[in-house]
Amino acid sequence: MPTIVRFGVSMEAELLRAFDALIEKKGYTNRSEALRDLVREALNAQAWAEGEEVLGVITLFYDHRKRELLSRLTEAQHHAHASVLATLHIHVDEERCLEVIAVRGRAQEVQELADRLCAEPGVLLGRLCPAGTFGRF
Amino acid sequence: MPTIVRFGVSMEAELLRAFDALIEKKGYTNRSEALRDLVREALNAQAWAEGEEVLGVITLFYDHRKRELLSRLTEAQHHAHASVLATLHIHVDEERCLEVIAVRGRAQEVQELADRLCAEPGVLLGRLCPAGTFGRF
Amino acid sequence: MPTIVRFGVSMEAELLRAFDALIEKKGYTNRSEALRDLVREALNAQAWAEGEEVLGVITLFYDHRKRELLSRLTEAQHHAHASVLATLHIHVDEERCLEVIAVRGRAQEVQELADRLCAEPGVLLGRLCPAGTFGRF
Amino acid sequence: MPTIVRFGVSMEAELLRAFDALIEKKGYTNRSEALRDLVREALNAQAWAEGEEVLGVITLFYDHRKRELLSRLTEAQHHAHASVLATLHIHVDEERCLEVIAVRGRAQEVQELADRLCAEPGVLLGRLCPAGTFGRF
Repeated sequence: MPTIVRFGVSMEAELLRAFDALIEKKGYTNRSEALRDLVREALNAQAWAEGEEVLGVITLFYDHRKRELLSRLTEAQHHAHASVLATLHIHVDEERCLEVIAVRGRAQEVQELADRLCAEPGVLLGRLCPAGTFGRF
Repeated sequence: MPTIVRFGVSMEAELLRAFDALIEKKGYTNRSEALRDLVREALNAQAWAEGEEVLGVITLFYDHRKRELLSRLTEAQHHAHASVLATLHIHVDEERCLEVIAVRGRAQEVQELADRLCAEPGVLLGRLCPAGTFGRF
Repeated sequence: MPTIVRFGVSMEAELLRAFDALIEKKGYTNRSEALRDLVREALNAQAWAEGEEVLGVITLFYDHRKRELLSRLTEAQHHAHASVLATLHIHVDEERCLEVIAVRGRAQEVQELADRLCAEPGVLLGRLCPAGTFGRF
Repeated sequence: MPTIVRFGVSMEAELLRAFDALIEKKGYTNRSEALRDLVREALNAQAWAEGEEVLGVITLFYDHRKRELLSRLTEAQHHAHASVLATLHIHVDEERCLEVIAVRGRAQEVQELADRLCAEPGVLLGRLCPAGTFGRF
């Protein structure tokens, strides 16, 4: 298990009160947990900005009737520098699907794969979500 | 199949040149497709801002050793107003997992579920990605 | 002066080490200050999402040669529900100006003014930056 | 004046209808203008991501009672690699000020200046807004 340290933080009483109200509303039961989440969020943003190895999730909302779209999406995933870990496919309605692709690689490689997939005709909306990093924290 | 219309757009020659260079770099083979993607992106942002029915993807990067985390995550999904369509689970390393949860509901309900899941102790990073809308376009 | 309180936070040693490295890089001399900034950032995001009274900065990058643009921009500012506090005008090059407009109002009123200004022909790029809130913290 | 070109775009009728409704709501009187704005927005994002020369606006919401904050903020601006074009200062209430700083430089230099200013004790909230680029469009 990881070593846990404890340290003191000083804060204006009113700021702390407002933060406690916000995190209670979001469902936190513990102030340290909420602060750790803010810290990890900041480190995640930095890891992406600096091109470290990251974990990304690409979401594609697409029209499956588009000719050869499925094979082009699959081919792009096989040729990418980033490695695709797994995909999830959901039939949203008669024409449209949601495909969720979990990817591991350098931030820029993950971005390049996302760009290429989103540019395919038939992909209606595509997004890259920065889901994690591999730092030891 | 949807009805396709064609209309004219006027643009500064230099702006068009810069746009064509950008989309070629991103892998587009067709300028209309790139413009349609920008338009759909703008409509997606609006649908989320206005609380319409949307499709979201929640990513959770968590430490599975945290006691009872799995059951609490499952319970939160069952009690949500938004409906969970499917989930994908990936073992990232010995301690950490990536869980990807595809959700359908009003934008605020989807946000509430995401907030609740991200607030669970043991969830290291959580993100909500606005993956789609149900507008007929 | 505000009342300052001090409280303890528990954190994995490796997470704290990574955070200390990040904030040193960003120029912080004090860990509490960095954590307070993350907290205020989270509260600012919430205040904007919930439509409270906020302080926004609208930036407009525009071509001043566009006929009547200046008078239309001024008129829109005078008719807005949000109140314009002050503006800064910079001549960027022969054709283009940067105008920075500090605005106070409910989040939605500020957004509406920004939308209206950005939609004016001749405005090349427009952005709304959520600069502050009026909560007592 | 710039050369204007005209080209055709094909789009699903329903998508175009939804876009026309959106831009009317935002105050556009002209569909080409709305599309040009989306294109310039995409080019601006790219210019920032690729580290080109850009125009940024840094907003600082701060407590002016903090000892020596004003001189430290000024000093940081004078020592920056990015060049400060102009600043706007607003007295928000008895304790707090909003300072808006227009900056020109490489994207990373602008980011470094923003980081350094935001890290100063007494700065409550700081933001960097990507306000423009120097591409000829």
